[in-house]
This record gives sequence, structure tokens and C-alpha cells, in this order.
Amino acid sequence: MNIGIIGLGYWGPNLVRNLYESNLCEQLFCCDLNEAKVNKIKSRYPALKTTTAFRDILDNPSIAGVVIATPVSTHHPLAKECLNAGKHVFVEKPFTASTAEAKELVELAKAQNRVIMVGHTFEYSPPVIKIKELIDRGELGKIYYISASRVNLGLHQKDVSVIWDLAPHDFSSIFYWLTEEPVRVSAMGKDYVQKNIPDVAFINLEFPSGCIANVQVSWLSPSKLRRTTIVGSEKMLVYDDTENFEKVKIYDKGVNYKDPETFGEFQLSYRTGDVVSPHLETFEPLNREMRHFIECCQKNLKPKTDGDNGLRVVAALEAAELSMRRGGVVVELKR
Amino acid sequence: MNIGIIGLGYWGPNLVRNLYESNLCEQLFCCDLNEAKVNKIKSRYPALKTTTAFRDILDNPSIAGVVIATPVSTHHPLAKECLNAGKHVFVEKPFTASTAEAKELVELAKAQNRVIMVGHTFEYSPPVIKIKELIDRGELGKIYYISASRVNLGLHQKDVSVIWDLAPHDFSSIFYWLTEEPVRVSAMGKDYVQKNIPDVAFINLEFPSGCIANVQVSWLSPSKLRRTTIVGSEKMLVYDDTENFEKVKIYDKGVNYKDPETFGEFQLSYRTGDVVSPHLETFEPLNREMRHFIECCQKNLKPKTDGDNGLRVVAALEAAELSMRRGGVVVELKR
Amino acid sequence: MNIGIIGLGYWGPNLVRNLYESNLCEQLFCCDLNEAKVNKIKSRYPALKTTTAFRDILDNPSIAGVVIATPVSTHHPLAKECLNAGKHVFVEKPFTASTAEAKELVELAKAQNRVIMVGHTFEYSPPVIKIKELIDRGELGKIYYISASRVNLGLHQKDVSVIWDLAPHDFSSIFYWLTEEPVRVSAMGKDYVQKNIPDVAFINLEFPSGCIANVQVSWLSPSKLRRTTIVGSEKMLVYDDTENFEKVKIYDKGVNYKDPETFGEFQLSYRTGDVVSPHLETFEPLNREMRHFIECCQKNLKPKTDGDNGLRVVAALEAAELSMRRGGVVVELKR
Amino acid sequence: MNIGIIGLGYWGPNLVRNLYESNLCEQLFCCDLNEAKVNKIKSRYPALKTTTAFRDILDNPSIAGVVIATPVSTHHPLAKECLNAGKHVFVEKPFTASTAEAKELVELAKAQNRVIMVGHTFEYSPPVIKIKELIDRGELGKIYYISASRVNLGLHQKDVSVIWDLAPHDFSSIFYWLTEEPVRVSAMGKDYVQKNIPDVAFINLEFPSGCIANVQVSWLSPSKLRRTTIVGSEKMLVYDDTENFEKVKIYDKGVNYKDPETFGEFQLSYRTGDVVSPHLETFEPLNREMRHFIECCQKNLKPKTDGDNGLRVVAALEAAELSMRRGGVVVELKR
Repeated sequence: MNIGIIGLGYWGPNLVRNLYESNLCEQLFCCDLNEAKVNKIKSRYPALKTTTAFRDILDNPSIAGVVIATPVSTHHPLAKECLNAGKHVFVEKPFTASTAEAKELVELAKAQNRVIMVGHTFEYSPPVIKIKELIDRGELGKIYYISASRVNLGLHQKDVSVIWDLAPHDFSSIFYWLTEEPVRVSAMGKDYVQKNIPDVAFINLEFPSGCIANVQVSWLSPSKLRRTTIVGSEKMLVYDDTENFEKVKIYDKGVNYKDPETFGEFQLSYRTGDVVSPHLETFEPLNREMRHFIECCQKNLKPKTDGDNGLRVVAALEAAELSMRRGGVVVELKR
Repeated sequence: MNIGIIGLGYWGPNLVRNLYESNLCEQLFCCDLNEAKVNKIKSRYPALKTTTAFRDILDNPSIAGVVIATPVSTHHPLAKECLNAGKHVFVEKPFTASTAEAKELVELAKAQNRVIMVGHTFEYSPPVIKIKELIDRGELGKIYYISASRVNLGLHQKDVSVIWDLAPHDFSSIFYWLTEEPVRVSAMGKDYVQKNIPDVAFINLEFPSGCIANVQVSWLSPSKLRRTTIVGSEKMLVYDDTENFEKVKIYDKGVNYKDPETFGEFQLSYRTGDVVSPHLETFEPLNREMRHFIECCQKNLKPKTDGDNGLRVVAALEAAELSMRRGGVVVELKR
Repeated sequence: MNIGIIGLGYWGPNLVRNLYESNLCEQLFCCDLNEAKVNKIKSRYPALKTTTAFRDILDNPSIAGVVIATPVSTHHPLAKECLNAGKHVFVEKPFTASTAEAKELVELAKAQNRVIMVGHTFEYSPPVIKIKELIDRGELGKIYYISASRVNLGLHQKDVSVIWDLAPHDFSSIFYWLTEEPVRVSAMGKDYVQKNIPDVAFINLEFPSGCIANVQVSWLSPSKLRRTTIVGSEKMLVYDDTENFEKVKIYDKGVNYKDPETFGEFQLSYRTGDVVSPHLETFEPLNREMRHFIECCQKNLKPKTDGDNGLRVVAALEAAELSMRRGGVVVELKR
Repeated sequence: MNIGIIGLGYWGPNLVRNLYESNLCEQLFCCDLNEAKVNKIKSRYPALKTTTAFRDILDNPSIAGVVIATPVSTHHPLAKECLNAGKHVFVEKPFTASTAEAKELVELAKAQNRVIMVGHTFEYSPPVIKIKELIDRGELGKIYYISASRVNLGLHQKDVSVIWDLAPHDFSSIFYWLTEEPVRVSAMGKDYVQKNIPDVAFINLEFPSGCIANVQVSWLSPSKLRRTTIVGSEKMLVYDDTENFEKVKIYDKGVNYKDPETFGEFQLSYRTGDVVSPHLETFEPLNREMRHFIECCQKNLKPKTDGDNGLRVVAALEAAELSMRRGGVVVELKR
């Protein structure tokens, strides 16, 4: 199977490396408008075919699938052309710049009977998958709330707010864990360094199950945090992605509520047991993701992070951005 | 000077201990409705005078000041009677259950020419004072935003939400540091364990200066966090109150914005310098607070945490609670 | 039962508090040569009887047991007089200033049929007991080696080296865990601040089982460490006493050695599983220790930390000090 | 300048990468007995010249310098042949398997007027250099003692003990900081997993200045430690190489000794000030090291980590190994 890769900026070369080293593709075709970037990847992997013309990818009938890693504003037009040319498409996160765009791509892929997959890499990472397993088998009980921080100093984007840059990771992970998407979103944020490009935001999400979530994203933070707390009725969990070891810790902690017997007062009792940091597999998420895309293309399967998956994240980003721009009003989400 | 103490529950005995060991009072009079609690304190400090009748305190002309450490709903009626009886009054945080009550006490104290002080102990603690100094002398530059977490497992209150229980600490510290109070407040929260008593809340605050703050409070959290991040235009700071050493860390970090020269693009440059953890004095905040109250009573001074200080915290708590009850609507704060 | 306490310096008042609050003693008699210290404890606990004359304790037939918390050089003469007066005796760690003294007290206690107990408090603490249980039920496998650090800034002693001040804690814990005592000891140390009073030492111990241990003690260290690593053939463990939570962590890690099949090379495989921090009970070790002493006195039982226990620690301290004074020569330990 | 690289095992490819990306060499010649390893590097860097015959490197007059990254037992014979062939030589740490070998190479390089350099990479790393600067300008005062831990699980070597594998890093750093080498060495260690290959060792060093050091190395440790504490008379320092940020922390802590005035007792006072984590430059040490080697070859300079530097580390390793094999006896070091 031959694959084309569009966009060799910050992230694209990682995709190229994983595709190249996977040995799953016969031939890789790399494309970027910037000739210097094309040359750089060529010097590193002389076996690649390269071009600065997107047309060359589109018109090449030997290319079955296209991986798009360009700025988000170009995702929709590029993906649309690829799907129309009969190719399977992988689009980096965030899927598109709007829900309207996302919906159009989902429908087009369906009409063309082609794979549309979104690069929510975290859903292919060992800790996020382990947490999903724990939640699904009920180890944490009913999920009460989730609190996530994804903050560090920089790198400021010039075209999108910090919400579109950093929140996709948390949104995709949280929706994956909860198997649901939010019904109400609000956000407060501010643009301190670049006018009109908010660099810090506090986002609140409310889910049909009653679960709530707080997601904090910032390009202006003294110390890097990648910390998610998940509180369930049975156990609680902390996932700290900056830890080299013990990324996930499960706390056997909880509160038991005892109904009052005849006229008495109810009682609360706190329970504290062991803390367990489960052993996690060690594989590169991007490698898993690329393998999954190729497998889906070859067998025409529905990807784990398909267009609908990408769409629900875009819908939440859109709502959060809208709320932030309107001073924090609560935005209802309907689909 | 003689002092009366009303309320010997969880916090009251700490106040008694500090007053007793300060040697600043001639005689302490302790009062609680619960005789067992009265007897317990008496057995520990036989020199104390005790009573179960609030009247005994009120009617005793030798008592110049009264310290109130009862449930918040009783703060207003008790403080009012004390002021009317001509006594100086210290009230534990939160000051009152409503802004209306707080305003009445502030005015009454003024009319009676008596001291009214609120127990925002953090404003007397070494790290909070050190941070105030750093901000005031401009070391952090303009304050962009503040993010605070005060979460742990328990202790659930039965009469007030987690907002009224835990947020007073962060609100009083933040307003003190910024020398301003919020104009807009919103909050999302939930009652998971006890019906109608929210045990987790995510609160957003917006200040006239443009600074925003996020305060997270929870009685349902696996690991105790007492972490505040303050991001300024010049430096950034982390205050972690669970650390035994290095509670405050100052990061010489920042982003510099360079305006575009003729038609070019603007540039951002990130700056990273040393991290400094300043030496902090070691004294018990409660001791400072009690000494300050006695000094204010004796010299009829305006306390650092006077009634207005308590009022502005109550106003923000009230707004946050209202927003939470109404699903997160933004509440404007006017005084 | 009536108890006498000799020595009201740094540690004595903690013993008094625990004995007082245990309600297990009818009357406590406190003694110190320094009248100010006697008065201070009296003002805090008016019910105590006090004296500055050791004779008053010795000659009082109502006192069944004596707790000695004086400088180590006085342990032997005081304990000897108490035993000769027919009293049960508890001596703070280290037991005595020499093995000769320790042996004499052990024999005297036996002859007098009285309890002799040594204050190795760590053997009554939740983490040390939990580790003992884990080792005893084989969870760690065969114990390979132990590495312990007990370092911080100060408090310099004026009469004994850092070995006699800090190493008793680690020695008593390690010997308790391993149920054996060292056969060879060496130590390197230096006196930097006070001439002839070493303030840092690196101690090596070798045990009959083949286990080795390294104990580092220092009054000159920038950050406080109380960290012990125990490496076994099956699992490994870290005990960090400066942690407020998760003091003990068990690592399911190990190396498996596979013998070579026919002419091949042997293979090593590394195993990494979960990390578990077991829940620990929460009680004050000193309280357990004092209760145990009283129970032993009343029922004439052999204490967990009896004279022999204290003696083996003294023997190792003596050997380590000797090695350090002689430039690190290996000292054989025989009993 | 053309460079030959001998040994493409674990470390060699890192040297190749740095030399390749430095663009300082015209042509690189890679050599390994194992053809698979040769092919692997060739496929990654097609521009390299490769061979499995060491002779090809030796006999090529265009090759001015040779980098040796083979097992330690082969360092001496390979380096000797290279020097005899008139080439500059870089040898990975540890320099040689014995002091005799090291001395011979040092003298041979001198006779041949060629560069001999040893790969003590840490001396080219930002934290180690920063610490050297701090010590040299007296910021820490007189250095009292150093304590270092370099422990983790695996990777067991099959030909040398853990001392020869891990201690070279600490020895070279410590000797560099102190500008002196030890006069006495002792070590205790054990072989738990592989017979006769000790996998844990506790090493003590004593220096002419009076400074002492403890170095702990282990392949059998539950959690990775790379922690060095340096205690000086003025300040103290912790260097933790597992930290991503704040690798070096300087504690403004100390003890002041005050001589007794007339007949009184001397006084100690403890001083605690700020903690500072200095900003460190970010460059790859290996890159610095390779550039330095090339510069030394081109200008015929004495390298920072020259043969004498490598020799003093080998001498200390040899002494530590000897002490360990003899049960911990103190070994005097003379040169």
C-alpha cells in the first residue's frame, strides 16, 4: 500500500518516521509547499518520493491513503479533495475548524465508502487505554468528575487559541473514557501575549450521566503540568503524563453514605486503602495509530478514532471557544 | 484584657490554645452549648473560666472582646449581640452567611466604635505574606492569571457547600494579593455524596484589572492539593502549601512580544532563568492573628482583615454559590 | 501503676505526654536536675508529681517502673540503680554507651527479675511493622541488600558522634527486619563543624545471611532524607519517612537468571510489574511503646525491644565508631 | 578531517550520529566485527563508509582520528595500534582495564605526539560544568563531603562489575569538581544475580583536602536514582539528573561555629536562606565532546578529559574493585 503525507511542519516528520519504520507501506510520497522542508525529509530518508505539488498526490492512482498534517484551517479542503479523489484519509487533530466542516467530511467519506480517521493519538497511548479498561470494568465505580490540567510555557500558536491547540487531547481522552460527549460547555479565557489569541482558558463540561469536568489549558505556565484526576464512587485515579514512571495511580479511596435509621442523622465514612500504580505497556502511540490507519484502509474498517470521534471533539472545542468569546456563558451542545 | 471565646468545636480549641499561650489576656472565658466540650477544655487548661450560657459572656463587663468560632449561620446573630453589648468582635471565616448580614455587622461595628475582625488566617501566614510582598514590589510584573486547587478527601460539611467551606481561604488570599475584588463570578459544581450539598466546584473569577482566576475546591479528591499558580508578565510563581520546604517557588520565566517591523510578522521569545525558593519566616499564623486582634482592640485600630475584608469574601462566595445553583451562569458582582 | 520519668530535656516531655494521655498510670513522677524544666512540665500537667532529686524516685516504693530519657552516658548508672531498687526500667535509645554496660544491665535485670526495655520507637511504627510483615511472609524473597539515608541539617550533639545519634534508628529497624545482626562493620566519617565529633558517616554492614547494608547519617545535609531501599530477590521496596502519604512502596521488579542450555550463554530477564503503596495504620508509635512497657511491667513479659535488642544495636554502633576512628578498617563483630 | 569509529554496539551509534550531524568531518569510516551492525548504521546513514576489518581503518592514511567504543578489555590493544599508526585517539570510558594499560597509552600518545582523549561525557554536560563553576568561584565554600547514588534496575554487564560500569561517571565528575583525586578507597559489594560479577557496591573515597565521598552504584534498584549531594562550608547543593527541570539546587544553608568566650561553651547556629535552581544551558554533552575531540586533533591541543584524566578514574576503579574483592579493606592510592 502506498501512502501520501501532506504537511512536513512540526508534526508531519513524526508521522513519516513511524510510517517509514513500520515497513507497512510500499512507497511513501511526501508533500509540502515549502521546498526546504521537502528536501530535509528527503535527505533523511532518501527512499521517499517527494513533491511540493498537492496535485501529484491526488492524481497518483497508486496512492491509496493520504495523511494530512497541515494547519487546521486547511484540513477540510484538503481532505475533501482527497476523498473525492477516492482516497482514504487520515487527518491530524483537531479534525476541522468547525462542526459544519466535520459533518461534511463524515458524510462524504460515507458516500465515497472511504476511511476517514482523526489523529487523536492519546486514544492509542498505554495510560489512556489502561484507564479506559479500568473504567469499563467498573473498577472506579460511577465516574463523578474529572479535572485535567495541560499547561506549560509556550508554544503560542498564531492562528488558533490555546483551546484549539491543547484541549483536543483532553477532550478526546475524556469522551473516550466516559463513552459520552458533553451537553453543556462554558469557558473563561484571556489573550495576554497576542491580541485576540487567548493563551489561557478554564473550561467546564457537563455530561448526560451527571459527570462534570474541568479542563485547564495554558501556554503561560511556570511548570509543565499534564495531570488528570478522575474521581469515581469506588476509587479515584491520577494520571500524570509528566511522570516517567508511575504515570497512573489508583487510590482505593471513597466515601460511604449511610442512610439515617429512624430519625437519626445520616453518616459518612471515609475509606482509604492501598495505592496501586499499574504496570503499563510500552509502545509508541503514533506507531499504533499509523498501523491502525493502514489496517483500516486495507480491510475497509471503521477506525477507533473515526470522523464522528473527530466531530464530537470539534463540537466541544467550538462550544468552548464560543463561550469564552462571550464572557463565559453556558453553551448547550446539540447534535 | 479579658477575652471570651464562643464555640469549642473543631477550630475553637486552636484559638483558645493560641490566646492562652500568648499570655496577652488576663482571663479567658470559654463558652459552648455542649457541656462535654466545655469540660474538655477546662481539664486541659484549668485556669480558664467556662460556661454553657452565652449570656454569661455578654453580661460580663470585664470581657472586652469576643472570639466567635461557631457554625457560620450563627455568626451574624452572635456577633450582633456582642457588638450591641459594646464588645470588640472576632468572627471566624466565612464572616457571615450573606452579604446583607456582613454589611449590617460592618455598620454596627462602626456605629458602636468597636473592632470587627474576620479570621482569614492565611493573610497572616508566611507564604501568603511573602507573595504579597513580591507582587507589591512588582517582581512578578502585571498579574495575568491565578489558578488554585484546594482539594482532598473529606471532611464533608453538613450545612454548607464545599464552596463556603474551602473557597474562603483562596478568595481571601487572592483578593489580598491583587488588592481588588472580582466583578464577575461563575461556578460549576455537583453534589455527589450528600444531596443538595455540593462537594466539588470549579469557580471562575474575573477582576477589574483583567486578571482572571480559577479556584477548584473538592471534598472528593484522591490526593491532597493546596497549589496556587500565579502568572505575571515578568515572572511566575507556584505556592504549594503541602510542601514542607520550598512552599513558594519563583520562576524567572516569561514571553516577550516583539512588534512587527514594517509589514513583518511579530515575534515571540521565551525567557527561562533561575528558579528561586525564598526563605520563609516560621511563625504560627493563628498566633499572629490573635495578637493582631488583641492589639486592635487595645489601640482601637482597623484590623488587616476587617469587616470589609470579610464582606468581600462573602460576596464572592454568595455569587459563586448562586452561579453553581443556576447551572454556571455568570454572576455580576456589584457593591 | 505508678511510673517515674527521669530526664525532661528534648525527648522526655513526649514520653510524659504519652504516659499522661494513655490513662494507664495512676500517678506520674517527673524528675530533672534542672528546676526550670520540672516547673514547665508541672505547669502543663498540674496533676504530675515532680522533683529534682533522683533519690525521690528511687526511694518511693509506690513507683513500679522508671522511664529514663537522659543523656546516653548516664543511662547505665541510672538504670543500674533503678534495677537494684527493684524497679522495671525503660531506657531511651541508644541503650548504653558501650556493650559492656549493656551486658551488665541485661544480666542485672535478669537477676532482679525485672523488665528492661529500650526505646527503639521505630519498631513500634506502622511502616516499619508493615515492612517486617512483608519480609516475614516472603513477599520480597531473599533480602539482597538495604540502603538507608538519615540526613538533615543539625541538630549537632555535643557529646556523641552522628553515628550514636542517628544510626540507632536504622540499625534497630534493619536488625528487626532481617532478624539477624551484622558480623562485620566499617565506617568512614568526618568531624567538620565540631572537632572530634564526627557529623557525617557512611557505614557498611555485612550480615550472616549474605545481606549487606549501607547506612548514611549526617547532620550536614541540605535536604532532609529518611529513605530506605530494600532489595529482595522477588520484589523491591522503598520506605520514605518524609512522605506524608505513600511512605512505603513495593515494586514488583526483579531479575530472572536463566541457566545456559548446552554451551549457550545464560540469560537475564528483567521483570517490571505494578507498584503498590500499602495502606498503613495510623497510630503514634510512642503511644504503642509506652503501652507495651506498662503491659510488660504488669505481666512481667519480655518486651519486643528488650535489653538484648538494645545491646545488639549498641554493639554495632560501637563497631562503626571504632572503624570510623581507625580510618575505615573492617571490624568483626562477635558476641 | 576524516574520522574512524570502532564499535557499533550500544554506544557507538550515538557517537556516529553526533559526528555525522556536526558536519565537522569530511568522511566517517565505521567498523564493527558484526556485519549486521555495520549494515544497520549504513542503512541509516548511506553516506558513511563501513567495514568489518579494523585493518581498513588503521591502514587508511586519510583517517586522522579514531573513536573507540568497544568493550573495555579491547580499549588498550586497539588504542595502542591506532597511536602506533599515527592516529589521534578517543577512547570511551572507562579508559582501560588497568592503570598499567592507561599509563602505557598516555606515554605512547606523548611519544607519538598524538591526542589521547577519554569519553567522560559528564564533564561536558551543563549541570556538571555549572557545579564546577560554582565550586571554583567559592560559592559553596570549602567542600566537606559528596554523596552520590547511581542506581537502577539493570543493565547487568557480563564482563565487568557494576563499579566499572557505573562508577566512572561519578568518579570523573567528582575528581573534576574537586580538582583532586582520592588517596584512599574502600568498597563493599556483592554479586547477587551473576556469580562473580558484583551488581551492587558502596564505595568510600578520601581526598587529600579532607573531603570524603560516598558513591553507591547498583543494577538492582527499584527506582532510578542519579542524585549527588555536595556539602560545603558555605552552601550545599543537590544535583538530580533524573529531574527534567531544576536538576541543580543550591541551598543557602550552613552551620556557624562560634568559639566560646571565656570559659563558656561554644555555640552553633544554623543558617537557612533561599534555595536557587540556576538556569542551565541546553546542549547535548556528546556533541560538545565530539567537537572538542576534533578541535584538539586539528590544533593538537590537550583535551579537557585527556589520558591522565582517564587514568585517575581507572586508578580509583581498580582500587575500589580490589577493596571490594578483599572484603572492604582500605586501599591506599599512590601514583
